[in-house]
Amino acid sequence: MTKRKEAFKLIPELTTEFETRIRFNECDPLGIVWHGHYIKYFEDGREAFGRKHGVSYLDVAESGFSTPIVKSMCEHKLSLRYGDVARIKTEYFDTPAAKIVFRYTIYDPNGDVACTGETIQVFVDKKGELQLTNPKFYEDWKRRAGLIS
Amino acid sequence: MTKRKEAFKLIPELTTEFETRIRFNECDPLGIVWHGHYIKYFEDGREAFGRKHGVSYLDVAESGFSTPIVKSMCEHKLSLRYGDVARIKTEYFDTPAAKIVFRYTIYDPNGDVACTGETIQVFVDKKGELQLTNPKFYEDWKRRAGLIS
Amino acid sequence: MTKRKEAFKLIPELTTEFETRIRFNECDPLGIVWHGHYIKYFEDGREAFGRKHGVSYLDVAESGFSTPIVKSMCEHKLSLRYGDVARIKTEYFDTPAAKIVFRYTIYDPNGDVACTGETIQVFVDKKGELQLTNPKFYEDWKRRAGLIS
Amino acid sequence: MTKRKEAFKLIPELTTEFETRIRFNECDPLGIVWHGHYIKYFEDGREAFGRKHGVSYLDVAESGFSTPIVKSMCEHKLSLRYGDVARIKTEYFDTPAAKIVFRYTIYDPNGDVACTGETIQVFVDKKGELQLTNPKFYEDWKRRAGLIS
Repeated sequence: MTKRKEAFKLIPELTTEFETRIRFNECDPLGIVWHGHYIKYFEDGREAFGRKHGVSYLDVAESGFSTPIVKSMCEHKLSLRYGDVARIKTEYFDTPAAKIVFRYTIYDPNGDVACTGETIQVFVDKKGELQLTNPKFYEDWKRRAGLIS
Repeated sequence: MTKRKEAFKLIPELTTEFETRIRFNECDPLGIVWHGHYIKYFEDGREAFGRKHGVSYLDVAESGFSTPIVKSMCEHKLSLRYGDVARIKTEYFDTPAAKIVFRYTIYDPNGDVACTGETIQVFVDKKGELQLTNPKFYEDWKRRAGLIS
Repeated sequence: MTKRKEAFKLIPELTTEFETRIRFNECDPLGIVWHGHYIKYFEDGREAFGRKHGVSYLDVAESGFSTPIVKSMCEHKLSLRYGDVARIKTEYFDTPAAKIVFRYTIYDPNGDVACTGETIQVFVDKKGELQLTNPKFYEDWKRRAGLIS
Repeated sequence: MTKRKEAFKLIPELTTEFETRIRFNECDPLGIVWHGHYIKYFEDGREAFGRKHGVSYLDVAESGFSTPIVKSMCEHKLSLRYGDVARIKTEYFDTPAAKIVFRYTIYDPNGDVACTGETIQVFVDKKGELQLTNPKFYEDWKRRAGLIS
């Protein structure tokens, strides 16, 4: 039986870091980043991951699929402010399910954790059908990444 | 010869008003609406115009065209703040050219002018070709609106 | 001992509904609302709740506090599209902790659930100190709302 | 008499280039950048200019002023798409008036002009008063930049 803690495995090699400078227009009247903008930073991190590891949105699209977000979660620890250069760490969590799971940690300029989060994506084909098993292109990618044999 | 002041005519009947409540997430660290968000308010006004006068984005799309913005301009007079209910007046400016011209006036809760602006749109067909004359659906709309006979 | 299911109680009277029309600029190249914009809709719902029930952002600010979001979560079931009029239901969840918990359900034009979500807010005073117990103004509000005696 | 063409002078040394990668969430259902987002790119360019030339938003704020945008204009020539790396050129236009004028040119990945634009900013002090002459800090900056003697 697969236990839950085995089902989601962090793969240290499958990690990407991306820096972003906080924009004036992302800060609210309290002078801090409005909480909803962190979802954009997660996307920045996820996209950087995709470019580095060959599984970008466009790679997915070329394979005939899209990968809509079905769940996103964000926990805020510290505020980011205008002008801060934040570091977004994106980690891939392996799962046997037909899903893509990323975890995010955003660090402030002092290296302290400003925010953590997670997104879950599924596979949808061109007809809009949810895929219950991993598409071939994704199995191939996992094989190349050494996640399956 | 058509003089410029005749070429663009304000048609008082072709005016729409739309109210919007300023969101917290639209305000910047100075406590006022970040200037770029006014372009969204112009779109809110233009869309309300389209729904009222039967020339919405979806009407245009069904006719096989899109109407990308080629120019937008915004002049700020007063600030809007979180919680303000602003009124967006959208006015149609008639022109013989194959363009759609709207002018916008945004009023603050006191009825004072916060901002004025203008957008110019052109017609592009499904192949991406710029139309040098008005598409038939738009000529028909102008006829129904009493702008041409 | 307080059990978790007692700790968070849905108060049916403390519910608000708010309608929003999906904007063109909120939709992505897939033609659906980009997932991060749902956080704005949650804020629209929360603000409508605050106005209706007398516990708005400005009420909170006048009492000398701010209520930053420390956690937000969003689960997507169905897509919303440009032009859809969506209905945002915001429900208050009572908790004895010094937190404000809202749950959100967004319905598509057919009345089907497009998305559910939750936000958790804490109280921070003007010096930026996290409050470990409910501020007096909030206890008063809960008393008026019949949540405590 | 000062002629208009003398009043606004392009200063070639006062130019900055900044690259930005077009985000998925900045593209609309037509697959292109929604026109309102260019105002953000202009801000990215202006901020890069401020950091390079020592006249950033924070420099201005430390001097006791803010510089709200009073006019912005944007003309679109070509579309930008998701994944494009665009180049934003920001040019300073000198004027004797108490204003800051920037012109922007955004290039697509082929080096073709996607968009041009302009912003005009004024000086407002901490009491919210519009300054009719350049504040001392700005005169000093212009002197250091060789614009005045």
